[in-house]
Amino acid sequence: MNHSPTPLRLHRETVRPEWIDYNGHMNVAYYLLAFDHATDAVLDHFGIGKAYAEGEGRSMFAVEAHLTYAHEVTEGDGLTFTSLVLGADAKRLHLFHEMRHEEDGFLAATAEFVLLHVDLAERRSVPLAPETAERLTRTVAEHATLPVPPQAGRSVGLRTPKGA
Amino acid sequence: MNHSPTPLRLHRETVRPEWIDYNGHMNVAYYLLAFDHATDAVLDHFGIGKAYAEGEGRSMFAVEAHLTYAHEVTEGDGLTFTSLVLGADAKRLHLFHEMRHEEDGFLAATAEFVLLHVDLAERRSVPLAPETAERLTRTVAEHATLPVPPQAGRSVGLRTPKGA
Repeated sequence: MNHSPTPLRLHRETVRPEWIDYNGHMNVAYYLLAFDHATDAVLDHFGIGKAYAEGEGRSMFAVEAHLTYAHEVTEGDGLTFTSLVLGADAKRLHLFHEMRHEEDGFLAATAEFVLLHVDLAERRSVPLAPETAERLTRTVAEHATLPVPPQAGRSVGLRTPKGA
Repeated sequence: MNHSPTPLRLHRETVRPEWIDYNGHMNVAYYLLAFDHATDAVLDHFGIGKAYAEGEGRSMFAVEAHLTYAHEVTEGDGLTFTSLVLGADAKRLHLFHEMRHEEDGFLAATAEFVLLHVDLAERRSVPLAPETAERLTRTVAEHATLPVPPQAGRSVGLRTPKGA
């Protein structure tokens, strides 16, 4: 049987009351918190999440993040996440997530992260275990056959929007 | 007397206990929350912050964000912020913030935001008041004489770091 690659679907979340700001919608920072939970789910999937940090004394630290905010969400909304592994090397991981409204299906936001593998005692970067790096590299190759999200690799600025 | 432009210095913050994650440092999302508070201080400075939202029914919504994480910070650390207005047009604002450790002075993180002026009743973009847009444009011109931060305008990815 053929195996068709798909994005990882490992996380869902409900918008909490304390995530709402004076504009009456989920605050920018809590989009990132929800995306961080989705990142944790991906890290758990590859055996490098919270349990790994607590058991092995090594963890993944974010060094860079890029978010695009496409649509408001509000208290009680269900959110679902899909995740792509866009890149990996001996120490680093490049993830991309989409957040969608669970009921209505619209894209709410995207997030792109680069994470670095760190020794928690020394607080400095160290290589991933070779088997983890290999498994990540295989996933990068699988996900490379999927369409590249238009929000990936973009930089922030006041360029003129497409079609404007 | 000559007037030498400087970045805006409008905000400080203390790292709260609930912002610490399983890695023993401020979680990625709360960097963004602290930067959002710094953004609110800039918006207040230009008369388009929370009081404006509540009084005028218009507000600034983030549409894009880019963060670089340079250094860990932990519970109780004081953080200071400097802010540049990198761009502005009839409806949009492009901000850049640096977060530094108050006592030790090191750079902890940077954040770049694009914000859109929105009517809160209709939930759609509308032009800023001309006098606000003019004041922002004057600040953009002033800040354009300052060095461009190396983190501004960057995109996320696994490019090889400089010097590696």
